[in-house]
Amino acid sequence: MKRLLTGVIALPLLILFILKASVFVFACFVGLLVLLGLGEFYRMALPKRPVVGTVASLSGMLVLPVLVSPELLLRFVPVPAGNGVLLALTLLFSAVAIFFLFSIRDIRQSAAEAGLIWLGFAYVPLLLSHLVLLRALPDGVSWVFLMLLIVMSGDTAAYYVGSTLGRRKLYPIVSPNKSIEGALGGLCGSLAGTLIAKYTFLHQLTVVDCVVTALAVGALGQVGDLFESLLKRSFGVKDSGIIIPGHGGILDRLDSILFAAPALYYYAYLVVMAR
Amino acid sequence: MKRLLTGVIALPLLILFILKASVFVFACFVGLLVLLGLGEFYRMALPKRPVVGTVASLSGMLVLPVLVSPELLLRFVPVPAGNGVLLALTLLFSAVAIFFLFSIRDIRQSAAEAGLIWLGFAYVPLLLSHLVLLRALPDGVSWVFLMLLIVMSGDTAAYYVGSTLGRRKLYPIVSPNKSIEGALGGLCGSLAGTLIAKYTFLHQLTVVDCVVTALAVGALGQVGDLFESLLKRSFGVKDSGIIIPGHGGILDRLDSILFAAPALYYYAYLVVMAR
Repeated sequence: MKRLLTGVIALPLLILFILKASVFVFACFVGLLVLLGLGEFYRMALPKRPVVGTVASLSGMLVLPVLVSPELLLRFVPVPAGNGVLLALTLLFSAVAIFFLFSIRDIRQSAAEAGLIWLGFAYVPLLLSHLVLLRALPDGVSWVFLMLLIVMSGDTAAYYVGSTLGRRKLYPIVSPNKSIEGALGGLCGSLAGTLIAKYTFLHQLTVVDCVVTALAVGALGQVGDLFESLLKRSFGVKDSGIIIPGHGGILDRLDSILFAAPALYYYAYLVVMAR
Repeated sequence: MKRLLTGVIALPLLILFILKASVFVFACFVGLLVLLGLGEFYRMALPKRPVVGTVASLSGMLVLPVLVSPELLLRFVPVPAGNGVLLALTLLFSAVAIFFLFSIRDIRQSAAEAGLIWLGFAYVPLLLSHLVLLRALPDGVSWVFLMLLIVMSGDTAAYYVGSTLGRRKLYPIVSPNKSIEGALGGLCGSLAGTLIAKYTFLHQLTVVDCVVTALAVGALGQVGDLFESLLKRSFGVKDSGIIIPGHGGILDRLDSILFAAPALYYYAYLVVMAR
């Protein structure tokens, strides 16, 4: 019930925001998601290191603009083209390495802790940067809506098909409630989503595009969902956070999008735009 | 004695190689170092996952050209300029995530294992890519020699000053044999190295350049040495490998260079070349 109420309030607001926000405002919103998502990640991954988690979350947010647009950095530092990403990552690595070198708690854990910092950077800002790139494409608003449609109609269909027809477990070690029937239902839901997009606001999609993106992006969205479950089980927590009433944490909401956004962006850029 | 013999044979060969090798051949050599270095890293970090380590080492070597020159990738995939690094990292992340999702040994270790894969990528190919960038600068051969001079004269001076005058421990939890006196002696050795370079083959350096690079690059080299000790202690091993007779592993030789090369590259590019 709480879940439904949040949806009824939040979804129209989200749609309105995507329709009205400029690329810059949208990018700032994604920056906020990175900050909150990384905050949750590090609270799970390094529960005994709250200050490190906060600093790493802020750094991850600051890396986002460099990942989205390495040229931005060139206005301030004249590094060779494209190597803005390299410079940012090198500075980050040196800072992380020096920090862990001089703040040892249990030396046997130091390398694993430094590794988890990097896992967070790769998981949240690296993947979410594609959301900004997707919005910055021509027809960016439509592409963002397509991604939400694929993920949300997939999630919804998976939930209803799974809870009515679900017999065979999909991957019980990682996610005990998911069924193979639900996963296949989810893909059909994603396909319905892409077809709705094609016949309403993204006419440039062919039927082949719809099938390919529904299967690839929808399947990667489901993989993203499983991967977040793996992380939570690996860290021994149930929800990634409590920020959204009835929906768990930010990462619980973003998990599919994290993996779906890059796939849809590269498909849009390399296949659809290239025609 | 073994150590001395290896040095007498290997050092002249290394000097000859750097003098004669083209940028491309030098880059291939660095690629080989990345492969061997990552191989060692993953044997220490994930001793029970030899196949994962081998695949990750090969992937790290393949990422090197993209890090060095994102434009290279653009010849094959028309991604927006500079985002070649983003594409490569996103593909890598997805592959690592999906692999760990579907090859769980102990689920409580999965996140830490995935993190260690990323720590390796950041530690070896990210940092070593600057060695290729350094060689590709105008006067690249001289800059590579300067880096070796700073690191090697620093190491040698630290060893002799530390073993004759060393009283106060530098950082015993990480490296019990190092002394503060040795570290300071090392910086003086690095300074001597930069001055030799200035008066023989790198006349464009000012005295200020020599002092700044000796202190910054020399100190980062020492930090790199400590960081590798931290990694080895964290993984519970003594030498990173046994590839070089009397010298331990590849990483035992590269540890200072890993941190020194980026610092010298950015100093050369952003300060000296910009004049």
